[in-house]
Amino acid sequence: MFNKDCFLDHIAVAVEDLDKAEKIYEDLGLKFDMRETVEEQQVETSFAHIDENAHIELLQPINGQGPIAKYLEKKGPGIHHMCYRVPNVHEKSAELRSQGYILLYDEPKSGANNTLVNFIHPKSTGGVLIEIAQKMES
Amino acid sequence: MFNKDCFLDHIAVAVEDLDKAEKIYEDLGLKFDMRETVEEQQVETSFAHIDENAHIELLQPINGQGPIAKYLEKKGPGIHHMCYRVPNVHEKSAELRSQGYILLYDEPKSGANNTLVNFIHPKSTGGVLIEIAQKMES
Repeated sequence: MFNKDCFLDHIAVAVEDLDKAEKIYEDLGLKFDMRETVEEQQVETSFAHIDENAHIELLQPINGQGPIAKYLEKKGPGIHHMCYRVPNVHEKSAELRSQGYILLYDEPKSGANNTLVNFIHPKSTGGVLIEIAQKMES
Repeated sequence: MFNKDCFLDHIAVAVEDLDKAEKIYEDLGLKFDMRETVEEQQVETSFAHIDENAHIELLQPINGQGPIAKYLEKKGPGIHHMCYRVPNVHEKSAELRSQGYILLYDEPKSGANNTLVNFIHPKSTGGVLIEIAQKMES
């Protein structure tokens, strides 16, 4: 069984065109049911459930700006990061920092789908950008 | 709710050292409970539950050989592919092929954890290597 203190929230995929990317995963069998613009990250996002809690999150840059636009320019489309849900993102950030992990933000920021998030730098995770997210009360 | 005809089986991460990689995800809060050698892919694998059905699968090459060894040499460690569970991998492979997707194998092969698998080439999925897997009766 999975651990309620740490489970997959989403896998994020950087895409150039949200409609075309949705079609690929729909052909696989997934169903997209939510879009959201995240100004903080300069992306439009689209979500499909892939398990009890987890989603796939497609990320398309807004106006060719922001971190996902830069990622696409440098590496092309592909899996950008994975995100794990934790009970408290402030506490988890501090705990990981004390263990030597490099966190991207000094203070957690607002993420998609009513979350508060931070990122662990790929340098300290064996090449994987890992987001940690706390669900906020809506 | 997720669709029983298509849900995340695992996210696979190419790693250089299984013990060191497990430590990173354990620090995050995950618990590894199964290792398996997959001769077909020349890898040793380690699994942790990340949601109701889904696992993270760490992949370490055996004796520096095989597709994961080549991947590490070329791109370094990182997320290698994601795998979706489908009811019938033969039927899904044929369906996707008829829609223009490039499948890696003409016939599905044995995968980890008692599955029969095929892969969709990143060229036809927007840069993401996607595995499809059917669970076999044990």
